[in-house]
Amino acid sequence: MAESTRPEDRAKIDAVLDQLAARTPISAIRVGISGAPGAGKSTLIESLGIHLLKLGHRVAVLAIDPSSGRSGGSILGDKTRMPTLATSNHAFVRPSPAGRSLGGVARATGAAVMLCEAAGFDVILVETVGVGQSETAVSDITDLFLLLIAPAAGDDLQGIKRGVMELADVIAVTKHDGVLAAVAETTASAYAGAQSLLRPKHQGYSVPTLTVSGLTGDGITPMWTEIELIHQKMRSTGLLESLRSNQAEAAFWAELSANAEDSHQAAVAEDPSLASLVEQVSSRLRHPRSAAREFWGRTQ
Amino acid sequence: MAESTRPEDRAKIDAVLDQLAARTPISAIRVGISGAPGAGKSTLIESLGIHLLKLGHRVAVLAIDPSSGRSGGSILGDKTRMPTLATSNHAFVRPSPAGRSLGGVARATGAAVMLCEAAGFDVILVETVGVGQSETAVSDITDLFLLLIAPAAGDDLQGIKRGVMELADVIAVTKHDGVLAAVAETTASAYAGAQSLLRPKHQGYSVPTLTVSGLTGDGITPMWTEIELIHQKMRSTGLLESLRSNQAEAAFWAELSANAEDSHQAAVAEDPSLASLVEQVSSRLRHPRSAAREFWGRTQ
Repeated sequence: MAESTRPEDRAKIDAVLDQLAARTPISAIRVGISGAPGAGKSTLIESLGIHLLKLGHRVAVLAIDPSSGRSGGSILGDKTRMPTLATSNHAFVRPSPAGRSLGGVARATGAAVMLCEAAGFDVILVETVGVGQSETAVSDITDLFLLLIAPAAGDDLQGIKRGVMELADVIAVTKHDGVLAAVAETTASAYAGAQSLLRPKHQGYSVPTLTVSGLTGDGITPMWTEIELIHQKMRSTGLLESLRSNQAEAAFWAELSANAEDSHQAAVAEDPSLASLVEQVSSRLRHPRSAAREFWGRTQ
Repeated sequence: MAESTRPEDRAKIDAVLDQLAARTPISAIRVGISGAPGAGKSTLIESLGIHLLKLGHRVAVLAIDPSSGRSGGSILGDKTRMPTLATSNHAFVRPSPAGRSLGGVARATGAAVMLCEAAGFDVILVETVGVGQSETAVSDITDLFLLLIAPAAGDDLQGIKRGVMELADVIAVTKHDGVLAAVAETTASAYAGAQSLLRPKHQGYSVPTLTVSGLTGDGITPMWTEIELIHQKMRSTGLLESLRSNQAEAAFWAELSANAEDSHQAAVAEDPSLASLVEQVSSRLRHPRSAAREFWGRTQ
């Protein structure tokens, strides 16, 4: 129902979300996970998920697929690629809502995160695939961000979308097994070096760059320990509480802005003279500021 | 007048901007320039500006100072720090508009860029100082972006705000003179290496990382040649035309969104029950989606 676009469903689920908001303390670790296609996200999430189940956690895997509005996109949160997690009673795996804009997908997944936390899942993993904006959308609804990188050498290293690295709290180079083990270590060193050129995300904190293997489970324990440590520190310093508050308020204003945009777009669709105004702006026959003033005056 | 916040001034200048928009073809190279405090921006801009004047260009230097809304901010576009440029008849140096939000400053400077291009300045440099959002604001009103970096070694390298590097079309390590020359070269190599880990901004294009000296003028000619080459390529491929169109349309929607936000903020200021609704969201007593629905319904 949280994924539905039908107005009557939305009204119902909004009432539920409202009731849950007041009753649900911070009880889950919300982790965003991203990596380019081929970085081994599914294998890693399956392996991490099994590790978490063994530790007694209840695990939800959600997804934001930026390509789901278009055709031919990969299905993130694919149950068949996480067979153990998908069949466990203590895990919930949900593919990305399909067929809408990134904003719509992100809002639906944001609601799902809240519902999972309220339902007692204490680890919520939100998966996405590297196109920058979807990572930002994921980081807006999670506590911290894990960036997965496939081992590569030389020119093949140019795989990280600019702007994604800045979101990472932890970087893990995957496939640290078999013939790729040595390459994974070189890759990790290269990214650790690149990280050292950037200002830290939080003061006095440097982003750990680790190696992991979803296949053998190697490195999963230290990686999760690192994530838990960061989360505990965020909690004890009050950063987590203020992050969640800021996220909630930002989501509120974003929702209002989305309402305003929708109503502007509807006005453009209904009134050809407004559509022509926008066309004149992009043809640079009208200045954006003056055209916006006219549009605003005519639609209020 | 473009910097004025008085409604009657805004109406007048908007009418002027509108007339100019239809009459002004793309005739200027608009370059965003950023660097942390101490990167030597003023010295470099003065040196580059003198070089451009010698080549027969008319040069405008504008600025977006993200700190101008707060107290104690540096005055970007400071005329006293660019003595030759500031006194030339073929140059125009204008400090950042003061005392407003970043959005307001950026909109005023965006209008100034348009006015300078219409007035026949064929190189427009827009200066800012590294806090991420201001760089994004600058890149929204310029054709390409020059990132200045001071020479530094080891731990001191952690100076680049995450997210700024992704905007750069050209990186120049400054102070390539005297005792710092060798350090500048090492720094340039480090950033060239870090760049190689990121996906290129445009396909098949790698960001040149150069060394320059504002003091001796060393490296200024190759740096400008590089900028001109990129701009010519953008122009011949149609990228420049579509970039400017997209920027205009994005500015239009941003202006409309700003209008909507202003009206929402005004509603919050006038109606204590709406203010309380927002407070409940940030205290997480209400869910953002449901609260936004209620807010929207009550203010339409």
